[in-house]
Amino acid sequence: MSSAPSIETHEEVMFFDTDLGGVVHNIAYLRFIETARTRLAAQLGMELKEMAATQLYPVVTRTEIDYRKPATLGDHLVFQGELEKFNRSRFWCQFEIRLRDDIDKLLVISRQCLALVQMPKGRPMALPKSWQKDFPLCYRPSS
Amino acid sequence: MSSAPSIETHEEVMFFDTDLGGVVHNIAYLRFIETARTRLAAQLGMELKEMAATQLYPVVTRTEIDYRKPATLGDHLVFQGELEKFNRSRFWCQFEIRLRDDIDKLLVISRQCLALVQMPKGRPMALPKSWQKDFPLCYRPSS
Amino acid sequence: MSSAPSIETHEEVMFFDTDLGGVVHNIAYLRFIETARTRLAAQLGMELKEMAATQLYPVVTRTEIDYRKPATLGDHLVFQGELEKFNRSRFWCQFEIRLRDDIDKLLVISRQCLALVQMPKGRPMALPKSWQKDFPLCYRPSS
Amino acid sequence: MSSAPSIETHEEVMFFDTDLGGVVHNIAYLRFIETARTRLAAQLGMELKEMAATQLYPVVTRTEIDYRKPATLGDHLVFQGELEKFNRSRFWCQFEIRLRDDIDKLLVISRQCLALVQMPKGRPMALPKSWQKDFPLCYRPSS
Repeated sequence: MSSAPSIETHEEVMFFDTDLGGVVHNIAYLRFIETARTRLAAQLGMELKEMAATQLYPVVTRTEIDYRKPATLGDHLVFQGELEKFNRSRFWCQFEIRLRDDIDKLLVISRQCLALVQMPKGRPMALPKSWQKDFPLCYRPSS
Repeated sequence: MSSAPSIETHEEVMFFDTDLGGVVHNIAYLRFIETARTRLAAQLGMELKEMAATQLYPVVTRTEIDYRKPATLGDHLVFQGELEKFNRSRFWCQFEIRLRDDIDKLLVISRQCLALVQMPKGRPMALPKSWQKDFPLCYRPSS
Repeated sequence: MSSAPSIETHEEVMFFDTDLGGVVHNIAYLRFIETARTRLAAQLGMELKEMAATQLYPVVTRTEIDYRKPATLGDHLVFQGELEKFNRSRFWCQFEIRLRDDIDKLLVISRQCLALVQMPKGRPMALPKSWQKDFPLCYRPSS
Repeated sequence: MSSAPSIETHEEVMFFDTDLGGVVHNIAYLRFIETARTRLAAQLGMELKEMAATQLYPVVTRTEIDYRKPATLGDHLVFQGELEKFNRSRFWCQFEIRLRDDIDKLLVISRQCLALVQMPKGRPMALPKSWQKDFPLCYRPSS
């Protein structure tokens, strides 16, 4: 039985990720999450190079992010992401961030809703029909 | 009668705020919002210079942000922010972003929850008692 | 007698500009400088909105930046920029960054070389002929 | 015979690295270079975690960067960095950025000078004596 598409990515906290509070700045996590989401999108059939060619882009329409525990310089972060659900025009991803060296410690959770948009006109497009066949467990037509 | 503390800030979209989709990147808005929030925090008695001295910082514990319409290079953005509510240990701010030259067009809305944290230990601190007197309309002790 | 085009911009150091060393991160200054350069470019006849329409962009081909003294959270920074020189295809700008409240303290100096590029083809374009008439003191045809 | 310490890192260009010109924004390369420099610093005995503990940080005092050819979304970039030279108090690193899939194409070159600084006082410190023994080919006492 097929399960939800999912990925795992890793990041090491650099100086530019931190602020003078001594911990990772809240905005830096969104950059990490975008990298994780890009890997997930590739699994969903959306490759960066192809997007650049077709100008058909997944666009974030909503982000929710909860910061539970801080990370700091040199920490190794583990990002687990998966497709949560989709309907005809939007899909939701969710992400959990943990410390590699203390893997039970949940630092950050986030959910993002995305839509497909054809640039440069900004026209919203339906998600590929193939998703319903490929990821049936995540399909929520009326959500 | 006192109303909720509020601010208005302005930004002009630079190259580094955009991505190759031709519009402002979703993460860039969070930087703008932090600038607006910093002005709002100053109204609430939290000045940057004082924070740097005391190491008592407001820390974002949750962000919700909805992207409704895009902005692009050279757009003048108007940020309206206000204190939504607070209890003993946390406060919520909300922000609306509009185009200066089409002010009815709502581009982005966001809410953020913050807590006061004493660094470098990371100890959560109560909000100042004075807030209950100064901003009574926003006080929600049980929320 | 005409002098070199010049601008002055101001920035206040935010949390996201700092790192856990307690001072402004070296990369953050480049963002500030881009904002100053954008104001300078407007004086040279290159408006952001017009660039977005024509896709004729000034592109940085070289940056030199010296970090002499640090700035920190809440500091008010003053950016002075001017056109240093130009030939037929490239122009140089220079920037000095000082503390508003200790204006003799020079924090950072930077020089940037730029060329005009027609996107999306990436074709290099000559600078406008009018510059030689408008900014004669900065014209160095053989540099 | 010992040679100069050197590293190679890899990055894939994300949306947030690009601007609406359709290519990687000039500032984004500095972030990539910082990641490469951090790997190089680890070879030189400066580990992120140890820095966070000792607050003895390498601080960039000068950056030179030449942008020769653009990269775009989804490009795989290869960063080659090495220690160029050092004296008692400063060291220089140099970096070259190429396309993984067209490795002879040199996109960007950069040099950075760094000094060791003891925070929070900001006191400049001598480089470790051991460097003269470990990296003799790079030692330039009078430069």
